[in-house]
Amino acid sequence: MIITCKKGAPQEEINKIIHNFESQGLEVTLSRGANYNVFGIVGDTTVVDERKIRANKWIEDVTRIGAPYKKVNRLFHPEDSVIDVAGIKIGGMEKIVVIGGPCSVEGREEICNIAEAVKDAGACMLRGGAYKPRTSPYAFQGLGTEGIEYMVEAKKNTGLPIVSELMSADKIDEFVEHVDLIQVGARNMQNFDLLKALGKINKPILLKRGLSNTVEEWLMSAEYIMAGGNENIILCERGIRTFERCTRNTLDLSVVPIIKRKSHLPIIIDPSHATGDWELVESMSLAAIAAGADGLIIEVHNNPECAWSDGAQSLKPDKFKTMIEKGRVIAEVVGRGM
Amino acid sequence: MIITCKKGAPQEEINKIIHNFESQGLEVTLSRGANYNVFGIVGDTTVVDERKIRANKWIEDVTRIGAPYKKVNRLFHPEDSVIDVAGIKIGGMEKIVVIGGPCSVEGREEICNIAEAVKDAGACMLRGGAYKPRTSPYAFQGLGTEGIEYMVEAKKNTGLPIVSELMSADKIDEFVEHVDLIQVGARNMQNFDLLKALGKINKPILLKRGLSNTVEEWLMSAEYIMAGGNENIILCERGIRTFERCTRNTLDLSVVPIIKRKSHLPIIIDPSHATGDWELVESMSLAAIAAGADGLIIEVHNNPECAWSDGAQSLKPDKFKTMIEKGRVIAEVVGRGM
Amino acid sequence: MIITCKKGAPQEEINKIIHNFESQGLEVTLSRGANYNVFGIVGDTTVVDERKIRANKWIEDVTRIGAPYKKVNRLFHPEDSVIDVAGIKIGGMEKIVVIGGPCSVEGREEICNIAEAVKDAGACMLRGGAYKPRTSPYAFQGLGTEGIEYMVEAKKNTGLPIVSELMSADKIDEFVEHVDLIQVGARNMQNFDLLKALGKINKPILLKRGLSNTVEEWLMSAEYIMAGGNENIILCERGIRTFERCTRNTLDLSVVPIIKRKSHLPIIIDPSHATGDWELVESMSLAAIAAGADGLIIEVHNNPECAWSDGAQSLKPDKFKTMIEKGRVIAEVVGRGM
Amino acid sequence: MIITCKKGAPQEEINKIIHNFESQGLEVTLSRGANYNVFGIVGDTTVVDERKIRANKWIEDVTRIGAPYKKVNRLFHPEDSVIDVAGIKIGGMEKIVVIGGPCSVEGREEICNIAEAVKDAGACMLRGGAYKPRTSPYAFQGLGTEGIEYMVEAKKNTGLPIVSELMSADKIDEFVEHVDLIQVGARNMQNFDLLKALGKINKPILLKRGLSNTVEEWLMSAEYIMAGGNENIILCERGIRTFERCTRNTLDLSVVPIIKRKSHLPIIIDPSHATGDWELVESMSLAAIAAGADGLIIEVHNNPECAWSDGAQSLKPDKFKTMIEKGRVIAEVVGRGM
Repeated sequence: MIITCKKGAPQEEINKIIHNFESQGLEVTLSRGANYNVFGIVGDTTVVDERKIRANKWIEDVTRIGAPYKKVNRLFHPEDSVIDVAGIKIGGMEKIVVIGGPCSVEGREEICNIAEAVKDAGACMLRGGAYKPRTSPYAFQGLGTEGIEYMVEAKKNTGLPIVSELMSADKIDEFVEHVDLIQVGARNMQNFDLLKALGKINKPILLKRGLSNTVEEWLMSAEYIMAGGNENIILCERGIRTFERCTRNTLDLSVVPIIKRKSHLPIIIDPSHATGDWELVESMSLAAIAAGADGLIIEVHNNPECAWSDGAQSLKPDKFKTMIEKGRVIAEVVGRGM
Repeated sequence: MIITCKKGAPQEEINKIIHNFESQGLEVTLSRGANYNVFGIVGDTTVVDERKIRANKWIEDVTRIGAPYKKVNRLFHPEDSVIDVAGIKIGGMEKIVVIGGPCSVEGREEICNIAEAVKDAGACMLRGGAYKPRTSPYAFQGLGTEGIEYMVEAKKNTGLPIVSELMSADKIDEFVEHVDLIQVGARNMQNFDLLKALGKINKPILLKRGLSNTVEEWLMSAEYIMAGGNENIILCERGIRTFERCTRNTLDLSVVPIIKRKSHLPIIIDPSHATGDWELVESMSLAAIAAGADGLIIEVHNNPECAWSDGAQSLKPDKFKTMIEKGRVIAEVVGRGM
Repeated sequence: MIITCKKGAPQEEINKIIHNFESQGLEVTLSRGANYNVFGIVGDTTVVDERKIRANKWIEDVTRIGAPYKKVNRLFHPEDSVIDVAGIKIGGMEKIVVIGGPCSVEGREEICNIAEAVKDAGACMLRGGAYKPRTSPYAFQGLGTEGIEYMVEAKKNTGLPIVSELMSADKIDEFVEHVDLIQVGARNMQNFDLLKALGKINKPILLKRGLSNTVEEWLMSAEYIMAGGNENIILCERGIRTFERCTRNTLDLSVVPIIKRKSHLPIIIDPSHATGDWELVESMSLAAIAAGADGLIIEVHNNPECAWSDGAQSLKPDKFKTMIEKGRVIAEVVGRGM
Repeated sequence: MIITCKKGAPQEEINKIIHNFESQGLEVTLSRGANYNVFGIVGDTTVVDERKIRANKWIEDVTRIGAPYKKVNRLFHPEDSVIDVAGIKIGGMEKIVVIGGPCSVEGREEICNIAEAVKDAGACMLRGGAYKPRTSPYAFQGLGTEGIEYMVEAKKNTGLPIVSELMSADKIDEFVEHVDLIQVGARNMQNFDLLKALGKINKPILLKRGLSNTVEEWLMSAEYIMAGGNENIILCERGIRTFERCTRNTLDLSVVPIIKRKSHLPIIIDPSHATGDWELVESMSLAAIAAGADGLIIEVHNNPECAWSDGAQSLKPDKFKTMIEKGRVIAEVVGRGM
């Protein structure tokens, strides 16, 4: 951590700052220039609060050198983490996983049919929303418990583990009992009370990146869960909010190699929410595989025009199957199965 | 609502689309051009889900004409809403309210001292965080219930109503009992389960704009609370996330007249979180008043250098007082007291 | 084009608006709702200025249905354009082109050596900057004419056509004489005087997307060149500016299928400037090929640590070669040579 | 400047880096931690190119402590610069200037009428575009030289100095002869050839901030002009591009105190382009004055509905006059005349 003092900071203030850090067991070195005094702070700075330092009026700037996260940091955990979701392994050099299914669970028959279809196409896990975060209070809010029950039935029929989004801590028991991979949606990435609650269970968590959250904030949210004791985390990029409006969001594929560098956690891509447009899903899925992603989560619907939500971004099963076939060839190029 | 069909859409599809809307009680008109067919949909389109329409492969684009919100919409409620917070009135042509206090409650004595100081300076309400949303799991998370108790004590001493942030629905009872204005933080603006829970009480809600949420999404979150039955909402702009990094966030003051045009709800400004820099707080506060804001919420600390959080953006009480004095003169120019 | 009038617009105003459009040869239909009057305007609306319409105080909103561009629009030119750059064909189902070379030309020997190296690795064109747009006036500004001369020499030695950036219209003659593909940099994407000048020549133009320009603005800049008479345009995505800072810019690969849908022009990707980080270049290059890009432009330097500019994002020739070999296998998956 | 080396960097590399800086006359100190080596570089680092340092594979990160600009830096020029535009003084504690006029010059009579109107309302300078940067090649491109002539005539009639936008260096002579304050538009903020050309004249320059340029880039563009020898620069904030679309751009008023802290140059605000909406111009103008701006540049048109460009954001003269009257009272609060 590097701290710059303003020109003219009195020696007394400088001594106070040095003493403050030394009393926390950190080592301090001081360089003096004509216009600045610069401190270098060496040691475990993850506990230091930058904004607290800035409160001193003599401080010009604070720059963190080491990352503010520990448990998710590849520096302290050089091997890839491989997460086990009901027997499916994700991460490392394991096969690239493909998760398919509808945005919302709409009924027993519908989800069971799609489950068969995505399994036939080559998916190894089923997605489906029972609790839906909707911008409008007047939009369909999901079937709730009934939706989870239908998912469980689809799992029984096909053997596919199931993924679903948890929106509040009071439903954790239901999810721990029935859901194999618990999704934290983009809008809840910094719902810290929810993250803390998820740190106390040991079901795998699918942590989506917030609409406008930096990679560092995303990793800090994963750190919340790991700090609580749950180390089964899979990250999911689903597009960020930018000035561009011809796609729903902007898919940031460069996070794939970035996450691999900074962390040991697996990362999968959601091209459906990222683009909001089924015609872009195949090309972005192939690109994600080529970029090194550990998996894909894709919206599939038998009849997108009648979907209760997000039909515009859902693939039909045959298109989903074609994508997987092409994807397998690209997976080989990057040394992976799929 | 305007819907464009692609060139070559078969008559049968067009008829299906028309029928679909008419069966919802909406009126449809069709214009045909060389390259497009355009439908105009007239009626109560708040219940129509745009993304569902887009799922039809013949649909090129969907444009909403009327706003997707009703209860927050000024069109259907032309007079300003005035919200009563324990006797303090906010909105309309009422006095501009000034809320002051620390980021976090740090102790009984500290909050009681600041409460006296902000009251002396001219504030009419006290802010203080007991439950703190922190990016890092290793940072101070707030005193919790103890913090609320100290706030209540500060209120007893000074008579100032209190504002504090609620982070999860399981603490609602505590807040309804003790807190006068319940804050929903930026990171929870789209925590829909929390919004629904707040719709069922009738305490006033201070709804902060999310870091990268549009005005429309913000109003939709207010609509969630109003749709649940709680009409006591005050909006709060606290800066948005942009590419610029020399301020913590970018304060978007143009939302003041925009909100006044689109909604009847009051809007206040938080220049402390918006800029993250106490040296900018006075100028942005004066600008907010000049722009027509209904109030200010400002971080004040007796000793910012020792604050447990956000000291860098806290004003000392004397600077806070100076700001209020200047602000009063500007308030007069825009026809308001303060 | 759809125009919404505010509630209460007098009939006289409405008639005036209708007459205004009809006098431009456009067809107008009017739908009336309880709160809005909506006009549909059908015909060639590319000449209509949206902002001029909005100046009428009774106008609520204006929505363009047809695109504001014609010559770049795939609707009016359904086949892919294939651009010929000194015998190399770009676009359609032609081979994916790879352009390699240094950020800046630094000397005769250096550029000639890199030219040999990129040719050996499999590149079919040489890039190199002679005129450099630098944020700081104190940074190296490029060798200018001398740099162009060295590029020409490297071309003679290797047969590789050359690409270089033109920064102002007064150097057009030099570029027309010596450069095979004239690059317009991101910062000049809306330097309209430069675009107009380039419309009058018929050398191929490589038009980079601006840091924060929408796809529509980008296509409008291409339209400027085409409207002037030069139809030889290749688009180049090089990352956009977002809130994220762990990459230099955010590479927006979804523009590949978007551009293919909206326009007939070829599109290539610059992963070097997009990421600013050579360690990300291979994965983003492979992703770009998988996404359907028509080519890649990549910074290659024999000794990146000593590069005069942008060494941090330059590949060494051996890594460049490895990337091309992997890329060829992916190109096959998407049905292309490389 | 602070440079972090990766863990395991060989001593030889570290020595090489130290030697490299010392040979440029800079002083180097080294701190070693368990996972990092950190160099502090002290001296005139404005000439050091960060991206060149990053090219070394052992470098983890580079942080600039001192600003990369010198001549615009308040550190080396503590007093406010006051710029003289044909006798009107801008900056320091001089009167707040108000510049009014149409977006485009449309004709002799039109500009002369508006000039009288803005003078009557209290403006001290006249704006008007003769060369217009338009997104579409099919939109009105300005009257060119004819427009400048009409501006000159309006100046003769009213005595108001004139402001107009220069789009390319080949028109500099015309502007030096006739225009009092030469505007560089947002889209040309990083047209470095144009900036260099403007460094060689000594007419005052109005440098608008680019749509998505940081404050540092903006100051670096001013540095280009000052480094060339022209120290007469006025900065102009005109809104930045963000995700929000209910205003044309997002007005960033916090740059007013930020620019005052970092630089000695005056800053004025353009609320017309920032909001794109005349109904927001008054409130944003008053806010700008309260925030400490040195002036305003506002679009005024006698008949906005018929304006050839940007009518939607133009005030009528009476509204412009009302705004100035209110503004004067606020100016007093911040200790300025207007």
